[in-house]
Amino acid sequence: MWTLKALAERFSLEFQGQPETTITGIGTLANAAEGQLAFLANSKYSAQLAGTAASVVVLSADDAENCPCACLISPNPYVSFAQITQLFEDDDSLEAGIHSSADIAKDAIVHASARIGAFVTIASGSVIEEDAHIHAHCHIGPNCHVGAGCNLLPRVTLVKRVRLGRRVRIHSGAVLGADGFGLAMHQGQWLKVAQLGGVRIGDDCEIGANTTIDRGAIEDTELENDVRLDNQIQIGHNVRIGAHTAIAGCVAVAGSTRIGRYCLIGGAAGIVGHIEIADKVVVGAMSLVTHSLREPGEYASGTPILGKAEWRKNAARFKQLDNLARQVNTLKKSQD
Amino acid sequence: MWTLKALAERFSLEFQGQPETTITGIGTLANAAEGQLAFLANSKYSAQLAGTAASVVVLSADDAENCPCACLISPNPYVSFAQITQLFEDDDSLEAGIHSSADIAKDAIVHASARIGAFVTIASGSVIEEDAHIHAHCHIGPNCHVGAGCNLLPRVTLVKRVRLGRRVRIHSGAVLGADGFGLAMHQGQWLKVAQLGGVRIGDDCEIGANTTIDRGAIEDTELENDVRLDNQIQIGHNVRIGAHTAIAGCVAVAGSTRIGRYCLIGGAAGIVGHIEIADKVVVGAMSLVTHSLREPGEYASGTPILGKAEWRKNAARFKQLDNLARQVNTLKKSQD
Amino acid sequence: MWTLKALAERFSLEFQGQPETTITGIGTLANAAEGQLAFLANSKYSAQLAGTAASVVVLSADDAENCPCACLISPNPYVSFAQITQLFEDDDSLEAGIHSSADIAKDAIVHASARIGAFVTIASGSVIEEDAHIHAHCHIGPNCHVGAGCNLLPRVTLVKRVRLGRRVRIHSGAVLGADGFGLAMHQGQWLKVAQLGGVRIGDDCEIGANTTIDRGAIEDTELENDVRLDNQIQIGHNVRIGAHTAIAGCVAVAGSTRIGRYCLIGGAAGIVGHIEIADKVVVGAMSLVTHSLREPGEYASGTPILGKAEWRKNAARFKQLDNLARQVNTLKKSQD
Repeated sequence: MWTLKALAERFSLEFQGQPETTITGIGTLANAAEGQLAFLANSKYSAQLAGTAASVVVLSADDAENCPCACLISPNPYVSFAQITQLFEDDDSLEAGIHSSADIAKDAIVHASARIGAFVTIASGSVIEEDAHIHAHCHIGPNCHVGAGCNLLPRVTLVKRVRLGRRVRIHSGAVLGADGFGLAMHQGQWLKVAQLGGVRIGDDCEIGANTTIDRGAIEDTELENDVRLDNQIQIGHNVRIGAHTAIAGCVAVAGSTRIGRYCLIGGAAGIVGHIEIADKVVVGAMSLVTHSLREPGEYASGTPILGKAEWRKNAARFKQLDNLARQVNTLKKSQD
Repeated sequence: MWTLKALAERFSLEFQGQPETTITGIGTLANAAEGQLAFLANSKYSAQLAGTAASVVVLSADDAENCPCACLISPNPYVSFAQITQLFEDDDSLEAGIHSSADIAKDAIVHASARIGAFVTIASGSVIEEDAHIHAHCHIGPNCHVGAGCNLLPRVTLVKRVRLGRRVRIHSGAVLGADGFGLAMHQGQWLKVAQLGGVRIGDDCEIGANTTIDRGAIEDTELENDVRLDNQIQIGHNVRIGAHTAIAGCVAVAGSTRIGRYCLIGGAAGIVGHIEIADKVVVGAMSLVTHSLREPGEYASGTPILGKAEWRKNAARFKQLDNLARQVNTLKKSQD
Repeated sequence: MWTLKALAERFSLEFQGQPETTITGIGTLANAAEGQLAFLANSKYSAQLAGTAASVVVLSADDAENCPCACLISPNPYVSFAQITQLFEDDDSLEAGIHSSADIAKDAIVHASARIGAFVTIASGSVIEEDAHIHAHCHIGPNCHVGAGCNLLPRVTLVKRVRLGRRVRIHSGAVLGADGFGLAMHQGQWLKVAQLGGVRIGDDCEIGANTTIDRGAIEDTELENDVRLDNQIQIGHNVRIGAHTAIAGCVAVAGSTRIGRYCLIGGAAGIVGHIEIADKVVVGAMSLVTHSLREPGEYASGTPILGKAEWRKNAARFKQLDNLARQVNTLKKSQD
């Protein structure tokens, strides 16, 4: 439980209203109840402000005069809101120590302050640094390194040679360090290219549920600091992703591609292998990137969603598009 | 083992043939052997009826006269077939009781009739209702509720604050209740928005293997009753899905979108965030829904599959499409 | 550690340079250090040869004369490289025997030479053949068969009735044998079609991390020998995939489709149900295959990636494409 004044002081915000107003939880502007704090960061929702039942709203100076209740005034209400939410999350820490059921190799090194949950396995040659939390059912394979303050939620798998920086957060079902997909065709059969590299993850990265990051063929697959991956993403071997890039769910990135810093990749987009994407590139949802994008900016592919009959009619014409363009050229010439 | 007569009585169907015909298993019309029951529900397969070696066929009254063997006559043969298949599935129940290896928090409440498999973890504050089956390797995080008759196949993860209705069936590798993907950019770094909501799943829902459903940012992510999700689907935070909607594999639904009741979403489709889809909308495979769809009906996007040379030629013209349309307009005007 | 001469003899290759040159690891042409072996298989990288610091390069006879260091000469350098890499992978074998924590049904049969890791569960009626390795956290459900020499990496789930051939390699998080997605609508509710088939996987297949393969409705879902699946692929019930076909990450294949032999399916492609794809078909990344492809060759769908403004302009015209084509026809007629 926090007071308005305490929050204002903690995050250096101005406020309006009774300093001792208490805040017991978080709500949406539309549905918050008394005692809850809401936020207004998008003018699309301004109309909801007048009717809110929240006790406190985080908002901009411009919106403060229309606020029917106490408020916290922020130059960036969404950032302030994000900071405040973190005070209200349940503590999901593991209990201190190593769970009695965990299976830890004799030569693995686990810092005394690390916490290890039930049925965790830690293989030979691996190191768990201070304050790292490894929740139930996680598997840390051979020669992995889990940096200080990392949080591996239940059922994370580090297959082998995975090196995590500090404060990396990995969600359930993620698999890092599986074999990259390397094959050579030999006498009518596939021959496996052994995947001798590893995975390196920078500080403050977050990896979503059921996301997979393969280890490199020779050198490492690499995420720089503060890369944020949503769920069900596939990162092929030897991909490199620049710092502060965020990738939405279900994106597929094929092998050896380099993605720059501060990129935003939309959900379910695809990026082919062996290309380079510049810093600050924004790729639209479900777009397929088939070649290097060397300039920052927004990119997209695909066609609009249409009623099926309309779609079918137009899609059939796509097959004739080259022919159509040639006809138009002919018409133009004959007109000249 | 069932007799023709017993099946007819159980499902209130008429039949032709010897009442004591025995049925020991299920087969396809084309490949069934003696003793097996097959079905004919699609006229595309009518030609296979004459040659079937099945002992019994489930079919419509119209097809009964052409049936070379015993048959069960149904107004909806596929529905009757579905009902019958359930009699032939192996019983994959867990053994009664709680496996000795399970790790259950002291304050978790597990009904005496619930069954808990090997290496299951159940965290503090969670409740398992009567006749729920939690198979091996499942993880039930803090403050979850598993309703009566639920069946969690091996290796399901409920991260936190997940509430399942009754008779929910969840397949291996699914992750419910992981953090939604909420980030604010602050001084060049991503700042996490704590995800304070949960996940609520209605009665009779089914969740496929390796599907992920994130918990809400403030309010809950929600599936109403009888929602059916196939494998590898990603449901973002605060999505709401109406009753009886079915979603095929690999679909991605971004945050805060609402999908209506009785919708059918085709495989690998994408649905962007913060939009609304009406009841009874059908979305084609791999379509991207970029805006609200307010009318029931079928929708699609994309282009036809073509031979690569033909595709390349036409796809190149897509880049000139606006220009082409302008040229046609000019030609029309000059002709007038 | 290997000598140049030993590698040449093992793989029947010619070599240039000191026979006793020692090779302690593998590197890329660009970044290899002394003691490392690199390869040159793609003329795109020929320019890197002159400056390489590798001690040995695997290359073609044509490139040998330009090699600044020792080399191994191969008619197919990539194949030879693949073979050599396998000598340098860490041995990630399990320890011999059955881990004391494993939970194995009394009637399961585990060959004396098989190795079983921590927290593995093996259910009733299942068989593990000789030299199979089942790593930590794997779950082998009822009535499964794991062939000789299989390697199940940590956390693989075989749900039920899954039969693996010999030397099958399955990566972490994969789920084989979950229920196919079979539903019948009955009185406004979904009714489940029990999935009575299994999954059959041929010899030498590889299944990627978090890939899912559903078991069949009546007959089995089947992969023939030497099929290679990357990560996060979804294979629907009753799909059949021909020998030596390779499928890249995030592909979705809907139920009852047959894919031929020696096909290559690009990443994130979709293939609808109940169709047939011939042998030696190549499908481009993110293409959607909506009908049978009866001829070998390359296929693709989709539109090029464009800057967003340019994309928006052209995509809007896609909606008018049929109309545009009609206008061109009218113009042509009026011109004649």
